[in-house]
Amino acid sequence: MADYTKMWTDLGLNHENHNALLEYLGGAYQSIFMSQEKRPEGMSYFDFVISEAHGLRIKELCDEREAGRKVIGSFCVFVPEEMVLAAGCTSVGLCSGADFAQEEVEKVIPRNTCSLIKSFFGFSLGKVCPYMEVSDLIVGENTCDGKKKAFETFKDMVPNFYQMDLPQTKTPAGRQTLKLEFMRFLNQLEEMTGKKVTLEGLKEGIAITNAKRKALQRLATLRAADPAPISGLDALLINQVSFLDNPVRFTENVNKICDQIEVEIAANQGVKKAKAPRILLSGCPMAIPNWKLPTIIESTGAVIVGEESCIGERGLRNLTDDSANTIEGLIDAIVDRYFKIDCAVFTPNQERVEHIKEMKAKYNADGVIHYGLQFCQPYIMESFTVEKQLEKENIPVLRIETDYSQEDIGQLSTRVEAFVEILK
Amino acid sequence: MADYTKMWTDLGLNHENHNALLEYLGGAYQSIFMSQEKRPEGMSYFDFVISEAHGLRIKELCDEREAGRKVIGSFCVFVPEEMVLAAGCTSVGLCSGADFAQEEVEKVIPRNTCSLIKSFFGFSLGKVCPYMEVSDLIVGENTCDGKKKAFETFKDMVPNFYQMDLPQTKTPAGRQTLKLEFMRFLNQLEEMTGKKVTLEGLKEGIAITNAKRKALQRLATLRAADPAPISGLDALLINQVSFLDNPVRFTENVNKICDQIEVEIAANQGVKKAKAPRILLSGCPMAIPNWKLPTIIESTGAVIVGEESCIGERGLRNLTDDSANTIEGLIDAIVDRYFKIDCAVFTPNQERVEHIKEMKAKYNADGVIHYGLQFCQPYIMESFTVEKQLEKENIPVLRIETDYSQEDIGQLSTRVEAFVEILK
Repeated sequence: MADYTKMWTDLGLNHENHNALLEYLGGAYQSIFMSQEKRPEGMSYFDFVISEAHGLRIKELCDEREAGRKVIGSFCVFVPEEMVLAAGCTSVGLCSGADFAQEEVEKVIPRNTCSLIKSFFGFSLGKVCPYMEVSDLIVGENTCDGKKKAFETFKDMVPNFYQMDLPQTKTPAGRQTLKLEFMRFLNQLEEMTGKKVTLEGLKEGIAITNAKRKALQRLATLRAADPAPISGLDALLINQVSFLDNPVRFTENVNKICDQIEVEIAANQGVKKAKAPRILLSGCPMAIPNWKLPTIIESTGAVIVGEESCIGERGLRNLTDDSANTIEGLIDAIVDRYFKIDCAVFTPNQERVEHIKEMKAKYNADGVIHYGLQFCQPYIMESFTVEKQLEKENIPVLRIETDYSQEDIGQLSTRVEAFVEILK
Repeated sequence: MADYTKMWTDLGLNHENHNALLEYLGGAYQSIFMSQEKRPEGMSYFDFVISEAHGLRIKELCDEREAGRKVIGSFCVFVPEEMVLAAGCTSVGLCSGADFAQEEVEKVIPRNTCSLIKSFFGFSLGKVCPYMEVSDLIVGENTCDGKKKAFETFKDMVPNFYQMDLPQTKTPAGRQTLKLEFMRFLNQLEEMTGKKVTLEGLKEGIAITNAKRKALQRLATLRAADPAPISGLDALLINQVSFLDNPVRFTENVNKICDQIEVEIAANQGVKKAKAPRILLSGCPMAIPNWKLPTIIESTGAVIVGEESCIGERGLRNLTDDSANTIEGLIDAIVDRYFKIDCAVFTPNQERVEHIKEMKAKYNADGVIHYGLQFCQPYIMESFTVEKQLEKENIPVLRIETDYSQEDIGQLSTRVEAFVEILK
């Protein structure tokens, strides 16, 4: 790895904290990912991206900024990447997958806050997330109460902040709220760049974003095969990388690994044993380096065949209709696409349960593990409904509630092992 | 007390559970309220209402229903009583102030849910809330994540349920969401009664509701006096009763006690010692019989001089403009009035901090105790901001996070006593 010390200093990162984080990440990555047997060849690209996530990728973003491009950091799949790209900006997901500076964090937000929110406060207070530091605008959103209210404090910790309002119901009034908000967001991007978004720009933004989704959907579909052609950990990693990488290059590399995987499937080859218990993961998003539960699941010999999650199928499943030939027509298409997201902040949200059932069938899963972050009220509340409705159809379900700490690994392992046993 | 056994049976209450609850309530009321010295004479009316809260008042509601009137039960000050009255219906607040059937409750909603939500599940599962059983329609709302998602389960536990959507921001789009929702709600009431709401009906609904608010505001204003002319416990009780009682009779009796209190104030008389430390309570609502924290506070010799809460000034402070002479004009006035409510589910919500400061000054409070129900993310998150901003103005603040259990009384007492000491 090149020496990025100067770049990190210029970005205002805290060296000591940041080095500690990189050391931890490197070690975790080695032991969790590199120790897997028989990984698809194309994973080397994603391993490289991760190894350079705080290095080369940040350098690229700095270079883009030098060239006048704006970087938009966000925490949520409701932030429309089509619009960010159409405005000539770059979209990046911000760090929120590990505990950092917890003591400092609990001075500004309550202890009973989910790990994901605490994490981005910690990354910010500890000055260890180069993506935050490189962002010209950070976008928060009114999804859950935790984020909505925490952003009131967070907004004062960063230079430029935009709070995106979101509806709570899938009603005409809800769609109107989303449309007005997306138009306000587009306007904000235009003000930042000083340029009006064009029809061609929107078409291109939609094309790039749809191509990325199609590639990820292709990968998801290949995971229906038995033996599993890719581990759940590696597939999750690819989804995680989709929030950091250049979208065009990322898409090419996802398609490349899909080409290789198709050859393996045709030869009846896989990375796991045939007939290994197959798990669908459902629930809260897992941001880098939140690999705890997938590691536990796959170390039992089971394989994760899909993620019903924002970092997974909830984020990528629907394409944006690109057929309109006016700016407003395309904005409407973008609104329609995002309005379909079945996030647990909506009420009612029966679509999500139906989608879990569809995924279970499509990817030949034997059971569902519902992952809820402690204190994430929307997903944990909804997990009761999910469990009830899946059990009605005799689909085995395990509800897990955890955080980013490592303390419950033993207990989680015992529960997951017992669950995997009944799937055999 | 008359024998209401038949009425309770007809309503489907569980005798054993309900008797246990009444016994507990009676005992708590005696020891907390009746043991106070020098209460205003007019409190006898409110004592009577409480003693007949499950008896005579329910009998009245049953009689109203016999006569064809509909009863609308709700949990939130966003449900517009003006409209309920205009439609010829009666509005009641539903039971949510005590733990009940906790073991059963935690089978259907998460353990990490606030006591208020768990409470109404417990009252419903235990069949002990006659107000729920007498309601022709129960109205839930999209305020916090906890309620919003819990109502998805609760709606199937009651015969008729209506979920009210609410905005999260005080923007034009937010006001539009509220207006559309209030119009939908009015429509629902009209469908239930089979009658269209008239201009006169709306005028009358607004008049009754405004008169109640004015009486409660009058009472609130009198509490600025030193020595305190009424205990915080009694004032809270009156606010709690406002959700149960017939609004016209209630208003008369609030004005009556105000008349008496004015005489006492003129004679420089009070129920507490002059110069007793004066506390403003701020935060989550305290539903009957949630008297834990006020009891602890006033047992130190301090007096509570105001409640910045839904059951308190947040619920009663703004009147509805009654000047319009069209139905739509009055609906707009109702929307405007409710859109001002500074509930912590809104973001940003700086108005609330400003209002706390105003109340502190107006009622001559020495300090603020912020009461957050454990797992109530909106208020607990916001309490950090409240604390920071009040401390900036040298206003002493104590942040309390608790639930409905009695286990932390010792610990709370110690903290409150220490806080009251610094106010002396």
